[in-house]
Order: sequence, then C-alpha cells, then structure tokens
Amino acid sequence: MKRILILGTGLIGASVGLALRSAGCTAQITGFDSSSAELEAALAIGAIDDIVATREAAFEAAREADLILIASPVLAILDWMRLLAPILGSHQLVTDVGSTKLTITRSAAEHFGRDRAHFLPGHPMAGKESGGAALADATLFHGAMWLFTPFEAPEPGSPAATLEAEWRAWIEKMGAHSMDLDPARHDELCAWVSHLPQMLSTAMAALLEDRFQDAPEISSIGGRALRETTRLGASPYSMWRDVALTNTEAIAGALDALEQELAHVRENLRTPELREEFLRANRFRSRRP
Amino acid sequence: MKRILILGTGLIGASVGLALRSAGCTAQITGFDSSSAELEAALAIGAIDDIVATREAAFEAAREADLILIASPVLAILDWMRLLAPILGSHQLVTDVGSTKLTITRSAAEHFGRDRAHFLPGHPMAGKESGGAALADATLFHGAMWLFTPFEAPEPGSPAATLEAEWRAWIEKMGAHSMDLDPARHDELCAWVSHLPQMLSTAMAALLEDRFQDAPEISSIGGRALRETTRLGASPYSMWRDVALTNTEAIAGALDALEQELAHVRENLRTPELREEFLRANRFRSRRP
Repeated sequence: MKRILILGTGLIGASVGLALRSAGCTAQITGFDSSSAELEAALAIGAIDDIVATREAAFEAAREADLILIASPVLAILDWMRLLAPILGSHQLVTDVGSTKLTITRSAAEHFGRDRAHFLPGHPMAGKESGGAALADATLFHGAMWLFTPFEAPEPGSPAATLEAEWRAWIEKMGAHSMDLDPARHDELCAWVSHLPQMLSTAMAALLEDRFQDAPEISSIGGRALRETTRLGASPYSMWRDVALTNTEAIAGALDALEQELAHVRENLRTPELREEFLRANRFRSRRP
Repeated sequence: MKRILILGTGLIGASVGLALRSAGCTAQITGFDSSSAELEAALAIGAIDDIVATREAAFEAAREADLILIASPVLAILDWMRLLAPILGSHQLVTDVGSTKLTITRSAAEHFGRDRAHFLPGHPMAGKESGGAALADATLFHGAMWLFTPFEAPEPGSPAATLEAEWRAWIEKMGAHSMDLDPARHDELCAWVSHLPQMLSTAMAALLEDRFQDAPEISSIGGRALRETTRLGASPYSMWRDVALTNTEAIAGALDALEQELAHVRENLRTPELREEFLRANRFRSRRP
C-alpha cells in the first residue's frame, strides 16, 4: 500500500493513522474530515501526512488511493460508500470502522465487488467516551478486538486479495486481534456488549441529572461505581444516533430484557431469589478477567 | 488510643488496619472474624497485631479497647451493637463501616450514648468487587469519602469527644475526606450512587449469564464498556443482602426510576428525544471528573 485515504479523522480515524505509523507503515496517509478543526488536529499530531480540504478533493484522492478507510458515523459511511463505489476500481480496497455492520455489509454487497473496488466491513472494539482527533492514541487498538463481517472472499491472487491480506496484517501490527463474524450476529452481539452498556450509561447519567442536577453531594459521595456506571454518558449523540437507527430492533430487545431483569431484582430485594441473581452474576464474572 | 479492636477482618476491616499502621498509628490492634481464614490472613499481612479466636474472647477484648471498629455486613453490625452496648463504658468509642446508616444509627441512639459507650456511625465509600483480607490495601481510602451520620455530639471535653476527634483525625491521615450527613439522606443518596449501580451491574451480569453462558464471543468482543458495566457483578450476596434488607424502599425507588428511563430510551431509539437523553447525560458527565 502506497497511498491510504482516511475519511473522517476523529478519534478512530486519527488513532488508526497514529497506530499505522507507530507500526512502521510508510504509506502516504491523506485525511479528510467535514470538520476542518478535526482535520487540522489530525495533521498536527502526525496522524495524517496531508489533507484534502473539500469533498471534491476527497473524491480525487480516493481515485489515487490503494486503501480507503471510512471512519465516520454509520450513516455517513453509507453515504461515502454510495458515492465512492462508481469512481473506484478493482485494484482498490475500501474498509470502514462502523459500529453496526448489517446495513453496511448489505450496502457493500450491492455497491462493491466484481469489477468494482473490494469492500471489507470492519469494526474495532475500541474507543473512548469522548471523541475527536485530540484524544487520538497510537495504542488505542492494543489488545482490542477488530471484527470483520466479510460478504465475499476476494479471488485468490487478485489485487483485492493482496490488499485485504495486507490490511489484516496491519490490524495485527497495530496490536489488535481480529475475528470474522456474520454481520447479523455481529449486530446482535454488539447490541448486548456495546450498545446496551452505552444506552444504560446514558440513561443512568440522564436520570441522575434530572434528579440531582449539580447537587455537590453526588460527586462527593459517588466513587468508582458511579464513575464507571455513567462514564459512557459523555458519549456524543452524533455517533450513537446512527447506531440506534441501524440496530434498533436488537438494542430494543436488549433494553427490554434488562428492564425485566431490573424489575425482577426490585421485586426480590427481600427474597432469597436475590441470592440466585447474585450467584448468576458471580458466575458470569468468574469466567472473565 | 492504645487499644483498637476490629470486628470483621475482611477487605474493609483489614484495609483499615493496614491504613492505620501506614499512617503511623501505634495502638495495639486486635482482630476477630467469624472466619478463621480471614482472621489468619489479616494477621499474616500485618493488618492486625493479634487475634481473638472466639466471640467470647472478642467480648473480653472489647472491654479493654478504646476503639471498637465493627466492619461486618449490616445485620451482623446490628447484632454486635446489641451485644456490646451493655458491657462497654462511656470511656469507649464504637464505630462501624456499614453500607446503610438509618437502621444502624437508630439502633445506636437506642443502645449507646449517655452512660454507655459513644457510637459514631460511619461509612467509607471504598471497596472492591471482591472481598476478603487477601485483597486488603493500605491505600484503599486514599481520596475516598468517609461518611458519618452522627445522632449526638459528644459532650465537649468528655472522653467520648476526645476519642471521636482522634478517630476523625485518623480517617484524614488514612487519606480519606469526611462529611457528616443525616442518616436518611445518606441512605437515599447511597441508593442512587452505590446501591443502584450494584444492582444494575448484578442484573446486567446475570442477564448475560442467562443469555450467553460462557459463549466465547462475549468475552472476545466485549471491551471496557462490558467490563465496567458488569464488574460489580462479582460482589458477594452476603454483603448486599443486608443492604437490600435495610434500604429496600430507596433502592426499589431508584430501580423503578431507572426501568422507566430505559423504557423511555427504548421507545425513542428512532426519535429526536434520544438526543435530549444524550444531552442530559453529557451535562451530568461534564460536571464530573
């Protein structure tokens, strides 16, 4: 890979740039972001080598790139995919970092492959509660799981196969593990282990805000439990709106199940059933680091 | 203080012993625990200087102690209080570390004070998801809030006043801050910032256990969000049963409010109201470190 284009130089896009550099990647990395502040920040920290300032220039840069990484919220990824597909060729690889994969993988199957560019849907399980290039970190993917939901295997020996193998190797060099999953299974699992914790943290923080506003006691008294339970409450709506829109049913199902579980705990605060609940929770934790 | 007796040498009791030593306390610290393993572990790590092996011996040691710290679950604290009150005198201070304070403070007002020992209800907002003397830590209270819910001020110049001032000074020397609260307010606030996060984490871990058992994907995919959301799922029922029994109404109220908030999120995954929810959560977090 000689030329990489990163579309979206926020936390994830800029961290990929830094991580690639830190892993020894010598490709020319060009960045674009709809926010010029994010773009300048990414350039300033060395996450990208140069920038394109307009969408038109981004399309031009895309034509020249071997790898195009789309690192924006999900709906913007879908927009980029639709617009890029007609102008790219089969010697190019497009990949993304979107949090939901079913919609993106379906769109990829429709718009990419065959005589067009190859598309590898991806999702690094890494992030921070606050976004932005300023928080980018070359070690963000160390030990993280980078999921792929491929819908086709590139033809052996094709340029697409070489590019995909090269990108997967860079993922490992950035310190991440990877796993391939069916996209529907991805969205169902992520509803439980990522989207539900996010909605829960947002609900918990919003509830405390309604109830206590800035009552000083809450901050003085609350310890690690409060901090951890509400940490993701800082996450931006802009990103999570798209997750909620593209994985609504699975998230609603997980939320509904949690509401019922909480009601069960509430109804059994004074019964031996609470013990069973704690034992099941203990069992879950005992198998995990 | 020449002699301190710690009743319950688990995580908190043993950590207090270590923290006192580390803060320069030279009193003789005696320990008792209904589990001889906990007791031996506390002795082995130097959290206590000597042990009493039976409840009878603990009562004898209590008669000789200047300060008696009861560091057991809440119902056991209430038992110790009832049994100790008749055999102690007004030159002695009893304090506790129980997680709920209304029941304990009411019992203290009934059994202590006047010509009996002085009782200062306390609650350090510190802990770990797993208990036991083996995890005790001299720095556990660094930066933590240690709450008190006094029901009487000791007479100025009395032995009780001196002992209370001395204990409060040790709390500071252990690195904790302290605050006095009305016991009902304590239990209400703790229902929100401590008991609700615990029940939530237990419910979340129990739900995932029911749904996925040991499916390897859950551990592979789940990152920090899953870890933080379920960490307290490891907490022991033995301690939380007493919290649930002595703060039932406040915890049920907080759980009910959270269930409603989650239902609100679920019903608005595709509406602009989700934005309001995220903004309120962002506001809560923006005021907290």
